[in-house]
Amino acid sequence: MNHKNIIRSIVSVTFAAGISAASLPAFANWEALPEVAPAPKDNPTTAAKVELGKMLYMDPRISSTGTVSCNSCHNIMEGGDDSRPVSMGVHGKTGGRSAPTVWNSAFYSVQFWDGRVDLLEDQAKGPITNPVEMGEPDHDHTMAKIKAIPGYKPYFEKAFGSDSMTIDNLAKAIAAFERTLITPNSAYDRYVKGDKKAMNAQQIRGMETFAQAGCTSCHSGAAFNGPKMPFGKGFYAKFPTFTDNKYSKQYNLMADKGREAATGKAADAHMFRVPTLRNITDTAPYFHNGSVNDLSEAVRLMAKVQLNKDLSDKEVADIVAFLGALTGPYPEITMPRLPATSGKSLVAGE
Amino acid sequence: MNHKNIIRSIVSVTFAAGISAASLPAFANWEALPEVAPAPKDNPTTAAKVELGKMLYMDPRISSTGTVSCNSCHNIMEGGDDSRPVSMGVHGKTGGRSAPTVWNSAFYSVQFWDGRVDLLEDQAKGPITNPVEMGEPDHDHTMAKIKAIPGYKPYFEKAFGSDSMTIDNLAKAIAAFERTLITPNSAYDRYVKGDKKAMNAQQIRGMETFAQAGCTSCHSGAAFNGPKMPFGKGFYAKFPTFTDNKYSKQYNLMADKGREAATGKAADAHMFRVPTLRNITDTAPYFHNGSVNDLSEAVRLMAKVQLNKDLSDKEVADIVAFLGALTGPYPEITMPRLPATSGKSLVAGE
Repeated sequence: MNHKNIIRSIVSVTFAAGISAASLPAFANWEALPEVAPAPKDNPTTAAKVELGKMLYMDPRISSTGTVSCNSCHNIMEGGDDSRPVSMGVHGKTGGRSAPTVWNSAFYSVQFWDGRVDLLEDQAKGPITNPVEMGEPDHDHTMAKIKAIPGYKPYFEKAFGSDSMTIDNLAKAIAAFERTLITPNSAYDRYVKGDKKAMNAQQIRGMETFAQAGCTSCHSGAAFNGPKMPFGKGFYAKFPTFTDNKYSKQYNLMADKGREAATGKAADAHMFRVPTLRNITDTAPYFHNGSVNDLSEAVRLMAKVQLNKDLSDKEVADIVAFLGALTGPYPEITMPRLPATSGKSLVAGE
Repeated sequence: MNHKNIIRSIVSVTFAAGISAASLPAFANWEALPEVAPAPKDNPTTAAKVELGKMLYMDPRISSTGTVSCNSCHNIMEGGDDSRPVSMGVHGKTGGRSAPTVWNSAFYSVQFWDGRVDLLEDQAKGPITNPVEMGEPDHDHTMAKIKAIPGYKPYFEKAFGSDSMTIDNLAKAIAAFERTLITPNSAYDRYVKGDKKAMNAQQIRGMETFAQAGCTSCHSGAAFNGPKMPFGKGFYAKFPTFTDNKYSKQYNLMADKGREAATGKAADAHMFRVPTLRNITDTAPYFHNGSVNDLSEAVRLMAKVQLNKDLSDKEVADIVAFLGALTGPYPEITMPRLPATSGKSLVAGE
């Protein structure tokens, strides 16, 4: 399969997602990550929202058991996920897909593996009431708890004005915080900006191999998750595309029908949002089902099931080295102090 | 029961714990919390240990599932515990006793509710292999994981020298970090040091009531957890002492035999380490079984079951106000960056 065919394949993918071929990036148009993440018009990122959002992001009392915060599965002290194939929520329950990293999630135009919501604001609400994640019965229950924590009120007021303790504002604050969780200035970014010593020889070779093999057909753009799109327009790819190989069965890649489960459309079968490759060295295990626990194997698999190519061990090693140049640096973050409910626990009965 | 009788009762408690009556504190000898916590001779607190210890304390990969860190049950963004009656460990399993706060745990001379180990170093090892906490099969398994994280090695070397990646040093580092988790300079501390405006009128009244009622018989000393003792000598009290009241049954206070389960001695039945009252407004629910979720009720109960006194609502409110003066301020802590295992997860198969 040559590059023209790959691009044709992507065009059809892109059309399926409802965008025009004209918005496709040039082949291997290397971009550094912006220093500031985009935000939707109705939720500009402010310091007050970020401060509140960080508290809410780290607060396990949002969950029914008081044990699961956003950070439990999207750990910002690590690669922004949880090192597990699938996450473990309240009462030790496990979900069906691997937690995507929160780092640079601000650069996605849709959220979740299947792109079923547009914005981080929408995403933040989902896990709260998911029975295998935070397990809350409904958002009213959650907001009753948040309102019962007196220390949160002034932070909501500062961020959103008076009478603003709503689930929508909770989600806006969390999303605003998440938009600060970005990692510009990786070795790759510095290289692209002109510091030719930022990457070593193997990483530069891997970058070339990455492009020549066709990885950039999908993993393009500043976050290596496809071309820049308006919020709500997703960039999807069929995974796996080539199934006549050992991997589909070995890693059970066909079990999850991806976006079809969200849209009900047969055309969306096995379509997944193209994930970012930034910080991928820190986010094992890999893929929507977390079935591959080795980045080299993940690279080899991708070349085969998406491009029908057999990479040599050297090519794999070079690409893995290049991917390492996409990791970090992570900003230093101060722990929030979670406001107390004086002399009373909100989750004691759960 | 007058104060003399209370003190006599405490003396017998103290003898039971193997210390002399001479080491009892003067009645209501108010002390501010030291600015530095004591450390055992073989583990002086150093910046390198604290830095490593903070990383290990926050690292959920120590647990079998990759979901439970020390911080999960002893959350330093909150009151140093988890807001739950009993904690939830791996696979949603729950334990038998409520997680004590880590804040100021450095000022205990023994650890755990039953004082079954002497030092924070010993304590840190326990939950790792507890099947309902971190669920590791053994410490060798844990250390194999830690050794497989390349980024930890230089931190161990800086803290303990070469070839130092052992479970004992892991525990020493965590303990060193925990010795920095102290909260001097609360309103109470400032008051005791001479700032007479640091506490309000109700808090001062509550402080007097607290002493006059006899609470200081056990809750004495800088951390309100009894007199200063050498490491390994515990300060215990029988709880409940008076059982001819509604509380023992209502809150199931007799089910747990306390220190007897650790020593096998009938004399230790229902003996518990006297817990600190610092930051108690932030550590609901209360008692070894987490059965009381209201600080006012906890104060009323304590007066009855330990002192056989019926406090008035005003006395309870005043004491609760005073206890609020023992809370915080908490130091600002930067999140550690947990070193990655590049391209591979250590807990993917768990």
